[in-house]
Order: sequence, then structure tokens, then C-alpha cells
Amino acid sequence: MAGAALHFKCEQLQKVGAFKFRGATNAVFSLSDTHATAGVATHSSGNHAQALALAARNRGIPAHIVMPSSASPVKRAAVEGYGASITTCEPTLAARETTLERVVARTGAHFVHPYDDHRVIAGAATAALELHEQVPGLELLLAPVGGGGLLAGTALATQLVAPDCRVIGVEPAGAADAYRSMAAGTIVPSIDPRTIADGLLTSLGQRNFAILQRCLHSIVTVGEADIVMAMRALWQRAKLLVEPSAAVPLAALLSGAIDPRGVPTGIILSGGNVDLDGLPW
Amino acid sequence: MAGAALHFKCEQLQKVGAFKFRGATNAVFSLSDTHATAGVATHSSGNHAQALALAARNRGIPAHIVMPSSASPVKRAAVEGYGASITTCEPTLAARETTLERVVARTGAHFVHPYDDHRVIAGAATAALELHEQVPGLELLLAPVGGGGLLAGTALATQLVAPDCRVIGVEPAGAADAYRSMAAGTIVPSIDPRTIADGLLTSLGQRNFAILQRCLHSIVTVGEADIVMAMRALWQRAKLLVEPSAAVPLAALLSGAIDPRGVPTGIILSGGNVDLDGLPW
Repeated sequence: MAGAALHFKCEQLQKVGAFKFRGATNAVFSLSDTHATAGVATHSSGNHAQALALAARNRGIPAHIVMPSSASPVKRAAVEGYGASITTCEPTLAARETTLERVVARTGAHFVHPYDDHRVIAGAATAALELHEQVPGLELLLAPVGGGGLLAGTALATQLVAPDCRVIGVEPAGAADAYRSMAAGTIVPSIDPRTIADGLLTSLGQRNFAILQRCLHSIVTVGEADIVMAMRALWQRAKLLVEPSAAVPLAALLSGAIDPRGVPTGIILSGGNVDLDGLPW
Repeated sequence: MAGAALHFKCEQLQKVGAFKFRGATNAVFSLSDTHATAGVATHSSGNHAQALALAARNRGIPAHIVMPSSASPVKRAAVEGYGASITTCEPTLAARETTLERVVARTGAHFVHPYDDHRVIAGAATAALELHEQVPGLELLLAPVGGGGLLAGTALATQLVAPDCRVIGVEPAGAADAYRSMAAGTIVPSIDPRTIADGLLTSLGQRNFAILQRCLHSIVTVGEADIVMAMRALWQRAKLLVEPSAAVPLAALLSGAIDPRGVPTGIILSGGNVDLDGLPW
């Protein structure tokens, strides 16, 4: 369909169903024993909350998760299932941040940001590192971009082990702050981003942006219909159950935004946490 | 969830999205050059049609497929995409059989039955053979049963390479002809079978029944709600996109029809060809 051999790194099969477990694990296991004792904390309504909760349980330390009252019961239950303690707050960024500050002050827990953190970026980089080991000779590697943890890690790892391989980020046109930031040379925050790829609504982080400026080939954008078409192709043809965000890079190939003909191409499929009762077709 | 380590053989990732490709391939490549020249033929509305079409293309011989007029356009297109020639008939078993006879008389093609054929059974057996190689020490192995090609092959392969491993077939209660046939000691054909597991509506074949009588531990049945629950668990928790028929064995574990606690258990996931516009939840 794309005119090239495509190699998928299947992070939907990762623990907690997303690449986020890599960064959370690296952050949690990077802490000294002294720092680790009081546990870790974050605010998240999504995959990072589950990832940090499981990573903390694996190290045997507490996890304190601030979740907005709008978070789905399924996601709350998953975080609780990993043994984390949840503090609920109003569903605004301000409420999440002030509630997190209170939790950190009370518990002494160590804050782990979902993407703007070098340990989290380094953890995310291991997906691309493994893919290059498994499939030597890739000349093009694609990853989606939201906060930029996965894409920055992918670009870093590729520069290290496969410097001739181009890394291109793919972003929904309806949430194209990374595309605009790269063009402007400074971070342009998202204003009212809208896309079915709900993992990519966040704005690019500072550390992520600095790495992308140094290591990335380029960013391209794709439309919503192409994202749905690519997601459906991955389900129907490849039997790979991915979330919309994970289908964004393939959308760039199938829509013609990137022409991979004859180029050995890798794609990081970022995750598979999708609402089975609300599929986009 | 099941209380045991479960090892899945993922035939949804097989060519044409189902184990059927194994049997069709073995049948097509078992033909002498003389017999192969005129090609192969079958009647099928489903996975066997696609499997035989692709196997024939791989050998470079013609495939003649009789499909009922009720077959979905998607499945017709897939069979045509593999280069087979399609003859359409009325959607009755009688029409399928007489149309097939005419096609065979006209072309000299060799008929390959979808399951009641020793070459097809031997091909299907390679799924269990590979699983035992990949996961030594299985003590319980489950497969769904429709016509009995997959289950007979699974039981045969296991008797050969893992004789201490019990093989249990799992069947929808609404299409339990294999269960009744084993109990009666003679084939009891399905009358008006009804189940969401549309790959298991066919009645047990003669050759399949003979093998099951000799090699199978037992058959258990499961209800429709348990099949849907198991399918959803495979999608939601394991990100394995399987069709309802493939979820039938797990339904036996999650519903308590089989208790695998502490027993290393294998499951053949038979395929992943599902209508994404008509999911059962």
C-alpha cells in the first residue's frame, strides 16, 4: 500500500499498552534510594499515570497520581489497580498543577513530568534503539509528536546508532504546534488543539524542542480523515490494534505527505489504548 | 485473569488473517506437477477461499472459487485480488456443490475441501507444532472447533510432540455438533446452528471426527456472552485483534468451563477477519 517495506515497533504490546512505560520506568529506576523512598508523583489523565504507577510498583515505592474528575472510570481503575493513590481535582491545568504541588509538599514525592524530562526522553528512546537493532538499515523512521517525548527520544537514538536514517515527526494538522514551533524556531503553544489523536493534544516541551531542533529531519502534518483511514488499515489489514495517535505516521505515507517508495521505513506505533465503544468509523 | 500463564499462537497475524492459509498451502504444494497444472477449486464464502487463492498464486497455478451471491464484497475483492477466478452461485449448499462440480468438469481443477481433507488437516497441524516448539512444557492446549480442521491438526501434532499435553476443543453452545458427535460416537450434523462465532457454523468432517475420536481429550461448550467477553478482553487487555471464533477457547477459561489454574496453557487464536463495522459490543 505504501510502496515500501514498513517495519512497525509495536508499543501497543508494551506494558500499560503504550511507549509511556519506558520513560516512566527509566525515571523511577534512575532515582537514588534516598530520593526514591518518598515515591513519585504526577498529574495525568492518561497513559503516563498508569505507566508511572506500574513503574513505582515494580520498584516498590509509592506513586501519587493527580487525576482530573473528568478522567474515565476505566483509567482510574487501572491506576488504582497498580496500587497508586489517586487525588482527584477539577479538570483544569491550573487545578492539576496546584493539586500536584500540595501532594508533593505533603508526601515529599518526586515529580515525574510526562515528557519534558531527560530521563523520560531517554526511556522513550529505547523503542527506536530496539527497532534499529531488530531491523538494521532503516533509512526513514517516523513517530508521532505530541509533547515530544517519543519523537525526541527516537531522534536521539537514531542519531546515535543509525546516523544516516532520517527521522520525521508526524503531527495532526489540528494540533500542529510542533510543526509551527520548528518553523518559528521557538515554541508556539497549542491553542484549542482538536484531533481524534487524543494522545497528541499536548504542547511540545522545552527539552523536547531543544533536542528536535538538533536531531530531527522535519515534521509533516496529516488530516483527520487520513488518520482514521490509516488506523483502519492497521486494524483491518495488519490486525494491529492501535490508538488513533499511533496511526498518525502511517497516515503520512498513505496520504502521500511522505513518499517512502523503495526506502526501508520504520514506524513507532505509540500505543493501543482506545475506547472500544467509540471507534471513529 | 485466568489464573495461569497463557500462551497464544496468533494466527490472526498469519497470511490472509487466519490459520486456513496453512492447510490450503499444504494441499496446493502437495499436488504433483501434473495434477497442479489445471489448478485448484473450492466453494467458500470465507477464509478458505482467500487462503486457497493465495496458495495457488504462490505456486503459480489457477484457482477457481465458487462464492455464494451473499458473500461480502470485501471478501470477493480479496479473492479477486489474489488472482483467482470467481464463479457466483445461489447462496445454498446445493447450489454451491453443483456449481463447483460444473467448474471442476470444465477446468479439470483439483477440489480442495476446506477441512475434511488430510492435507488440510496436516497443514493446520503446523500451528500447534510451532507453538510446542516455541513454548515447551504446555500441559493444556485449546483450540476452537467448527469443521474440525484446526482441532484435529492440533490434536495430531500434540500427540506426536507433546503426548502429555491435554488437547481440549471449545465450541459455541449454539453450534455444538462436535460436542454432541463426540458424546454419541457418531457424527451428529448441525441443524440451524447460531453463534456470533461465524467461523464455527460448519459441521464436523468425517476425517476430522475420526482423528478427534482417537487423539482428543474432550470438548467443552461456551455461551455467546462469554465469547463476546473473551473477545473484548483479548482486544482491550492484550491488543490482539481476533475474530469471535478465535475468542471461543479463552471464553472457556474466563467463564470457568475449564479451570487452568497453575497449568501452563496454550491457545490457538484462529484468526482476525472481523467486520469492523459490526462489532458485538
